[in-house]
Amino acid sequence: MNAIGVDIGGTKIAAAVVTPEGKILNEVRYPTQAVPPNRLIETIARAITEVKDGFEVGGVCVAVPGLILASENKVIFAPNLHEIENIRLDEEIGRRTGLTVTVENDANVAAWGEFRFGAGRGLEHMVFITLGTGVGGGVITHGVLLRGAQGAGGELGHVTINPTGPRCGCGNYGCLEALASGTAIQRRARELANERPNSELGRLAIERQVLGEDVTRLAQEGDEVSNSVLEETGRWLGIGLAGFVNTFNPEVITVGGGASQAGELILEPARKEVQLRARPPSRDLVEIKEATLGPESGVLGAAALVEGED
Amino acid sequence: MNAIGVDIGGTKIAAAVVTPEGKILNEVRYPTQAVPPNRLIETIARAITEVKDGFEVGGVCVAVPGLILASENKVIFAPNLHEIENIRLDEEIGRRTGLTVTVENDANVAAWGEFRFGAGRGLEHMVFITLGTGVGGGVITHGVLLRGAQGAGGELGHVTINPTGPRCGCGNYGCLEALASGTAIQRRARELANERPNSELGRLAIERQVLGEDVTRLAQEGDEVSNSVLEETGRWLGIGLAGFVNTFNPEVITVGGGASQAGELILEPARKEVQLRARPPSRDLVEIKEATLGPESGVLGAAALVEGED
Repeated sequence: MNAIGVDIGGTKIAAAVVTPEGKILNEVRYPTQAVPPNRLIETIARAITEVKDGFEVGGVCVAVPGLILASENKVIFAPNLHEIENIRLDEEIGRRTGLTVTVENDANVAAWGEFRFGAGRGLEHMVFITLGTGVGGGVITHGVLLRGAQGAGGELGHVTINPTGPRCGCGNYGCLEALASGTAIQRRARELANERPNSELGRLAIERQVLGEDVTRLAQEGDEVSNSVLEETGRWLGIGLAGFVNTFNPEVITVGGGASQAGELILEPARKEVQLRARPPSRDLVEIKEATLGPESGVLGAAALVEGED
Repeated sequence: MNAIGVDIGGTKIAAAVVTPEGKILNEVRYPTQAVPPNRLIETIARAITEVKDGFEVGGVCVAVPGLILASENKVIFAPNLHEIENIRLDEEIGRRTGLTVTVENDANVAAWGEFRFGAGRGLEHMVFITLGTGVGGGVITHGVLLRGAQGAGGELGHVTINPTGPRCGCGNYGCLEALASGTAIQRRARELANERPNSELGRLAIERQVLGEDVTRLAQEGDEVSNSVLEETGRWLGIGLAGFVNTFNPEVITVGGGASQAGELILEPARKEVQLRARPPSRDLVEIKEATLGPESGVLGAAALVEGED
């Protein structure tokens, strides 16, 4: 049966009616910047009602960027969306739309989207990593989404890979997120631009703030300093991935998110590190590649989770 | 139905007939030191035939300390048992005993034993860590043993927690095993004994080689230096466990193996590190405690795996 997937991001809400085969029949988007605090739930409900538009649907799953307490369909920590913390989203949205609603972590949802309809299609064991402002993760083992006891499993971005490393947004030191996120790329680019003011990267940094996409573009154009920023990021990513390879023995690791646009400039050094640090037979089996669905993985995965994991 | 669990250790083979409720009806043990190379399979088969002794059994599961390729019931790397590498154990043992045989990694098997009959009884999400000469791991999520695509999943001892840390037996640097195993305790004890020759630990180290159990005993008797060896080990263990908490959102982490006899002297600093490094709600849920089955977890878990995971 068709279902509605909702993806709440930092800048927009997307809601889509999706078929069991992963085809989007209808989609609406609202900017979240324009939403006043406390009105976010109204906006989510409006998006759902609008996108439903005569379609028959089995239910709604809402993907939220934050820590979830699944048993209560509650968001307990959402750094960009404080207004929905500690509210029973299933009841609040259900009451306004007349539909059955569940809540999931956005990275778990995107992982499920890639698993069902993208880079993990047809497989049984997949690790998904999203490299954005932060680092999110989602794991499928034996065909099942790893949610853990409270729905808080799969927080791969906050695994410590260097105990004395830089401070992470979560308060810990040396998380994968602190070393391999888009934010980490920008920090590293700033540092190297200071050290090498005559590089392309250094010259750009004098003009304006360097973004992650600048680093990728300059590296693609041959700037060695920019390339070394991505290479170091890839090595840290690989240290984390090697642990996930040993832990999960997955068939594939799929890397998505904005910073994954650097593609092979990050993935190649990551693969090398995995070869050095992971064990056979897992390290020889695993394929490390880019996600294929892009930003649609959220609504697709959410809708697919409404129907369960079969 | 009853089943036979076989546990192949570095120094002995244990085989037991076990009921579905986890009761051992019959058990035999052979030392493996006495086994000449290439005769290990004969000895395993003899142990199985001997322990069967008129009992009706549904099959056999053999727990092996090494890397497994489950699809072929093959051991691909067993540092202490080279003679069984790359042999189809299911066929070799099956032919000699007339029974259906499967092969599993010993830590995964012990995890399953603790999950079914020990510290994880009645739960759905458990991480098991065994601290011995090395560090083994096993994970149960949503009631299912995490085997991964090739049966090589759950290698938690070889997750990198300090990329520039000491070299591990596996060739990598800074694995959990290199920092929190019994071997790591001995290394750390040696170093500190040199630095503090007037401590109890230092005086013992002049007389003879210090073992892990000496460190525990001296720490229990109040030797501060020995205590700091265990405390540092516990902190490294906790760095690893924090990652597993974020990854799996387990109800319990069970710590077994010889070095776990240090008990709270290791577990307490580990818990502190988990509180610092893991995220809510997972870090608030998880209980970190000692395994309860001791060395019998191997034969019990192996036998329980014969019947499948229901």
